[in-house]
Amino acid sequence: MVGLGPGNRESITPEALGAIKEAQVVVGYPTYLDLIEDLMAGKERVATPMRGELERARQAVALAVAGKKVAVVSSGDPGIYGMAGLILEVAGGEIPVQVVPGVTAASAAAAALGAPLMNDFAVISLSDLLTPWEIMIRRLEAAAQGDFVIVLYNPRSHGRPDHIKRAREIFLRHRSSQTPVGIVRCARRGLEEKILTDLENMLHYEIDMLTTVVIGNSQTRVMGGEMVTPRGYRL
Amino acid sequence: MVGLGPGNRESITPEALGAIKEAQVVVGYPTYLDLIEDLMAGKERVATPMRGELERARQAVALAVAGKKVAVVSSGDPGIYGMAGLILEVAGGEIPVQVVPGVTAASAAAAALGAPLMNDFAVISLSDLLTPWEIMIRRLEAAAQGDFVIVLYNPRSHGRPDHIKRAREIFLRHRSSQTPVGIVRCARRGLEEKILTDLENMLHYEIDMLTTVVIGNSQTRVMGGEMVTPRGYRL
Repeated sequence: MVGLGPGNRESITPEALGAIKEAQVVVGYPTYLDLIEDLMAGKERVATPMRGELERARQAVALAVAGKKVAVVSSGDPGIYGMAGLILEVAGGEIPVQVVPGVTAASAAAAALGAPLMNDFAVISLSDLLTPWEIMIRRLEAAAQGDFVIVLYNPRSHGRPDHIKRAREIFLRHRSSQTPVGIVRCARRGLEEKILTDLENMLHYEIDMLTTVVIGNSQTRVMGGEMVTPRGYRL
Repeated sequence: MVGLGPGNRESITPEALGAIKEAQVVVGYPTYLDLIEDLMAGKERVATPMRGELERARQAVALAVAGKKVAVVSSGDPGIYGMAGLILEVAGGEIPVQVVPGVTAASAAAAALGAPLMNDFAVISLSDLLTPWEIMIRRLEAAAQGDFVIVLYNPRSHGRPDHIKRAREIFLRHRSSQTPVGIVRCARRGLEEKILTDLENMLHYEIDMLTTVVIGNSQTRVMGGEMVTPRGYRL
């Protein structure tokens, strides 16, 4: 399991590149395979479609059981909402599995926005393909109550356009409508777009599955165009 | 602000190395400067002691205001409990500041343990140098109630040996004593040590400031020696 980070070549660690170089088979979405095209000579390439996670995991494990060295590549960190868990579940201890971490979307988005994650934060995915909505609501409530900075992964898709609206309503019950909100699209991919807004206005901007949304806590401020949650030092 | 990741050379992204190469001055703890010694030729080196964060930020900003290109290096991701916020606060918009993210301790620890962060998680620092204990308790309670996987940064130091005990008591009010707990020391630094235990037994192991502790949620299991929070796929 190899994490490629936010999706530009400059963010891939040498450890991740090394794991890919060692592999005989590389499995992943076509977009990510393209990113490492120059390393693919002589390797078997298994490009898999979106949403085919279980099939991909089974294929990768079957190849490894058959004796191949397999690298399953993904963007971000495969250990955060990634394929690592599914691979371990499917492998069931039959083959050795190693996870090579990458820079996750929370880090990439935070870097684009300034420094919103200087204090405790919660990471929540708004995709309910796998998590029931009631559990998601419970977590949104808990994170809002606990005054966590909140990082939303998978904030919106065609199948669930209303989750982000309902999440915002929950936050507004616990936080000021002026709470800073950062919206980052394609962090560090060369096409990075970032928007600094607030809970009041956040829905006026495009939020899709390529964006990461960061909701400030009660201390988060915007200073000189940067979103900062002070760590608490007395200046 | 440049993140070096978990602390071995193999985890430093090309983007981070590039930022260091471009800098005229490199500021950081001696340990981290040693890691990039081969890049330091011809550069001014400002080694700073632990706990001197504010002084370090002021020095770095003063050098940048004086026209130097300055890289402030740190382990992990400077955007997660790092120096990025302090630098932005001290700089006050006077100089351009860029954050180059790195692999944070949560990712490195998760990779060592298996796949505990496949579902929503909260990141909490147990250092109360900067966060009042009452706020920390409120967050520990909220994260436990919300059934988040919980990643504890700075879990223990000489000044506050009891925080981890009190955190455990809070978790035990919401979760089974058999809840898996992972303790990782020096993740990916070549001397990595990992322990898989549970809420009942976690305090029998050494936990210090070099460790990251991951507390499972209600779904987290240990399978074949790996800590896994299932993402929810039906196998």
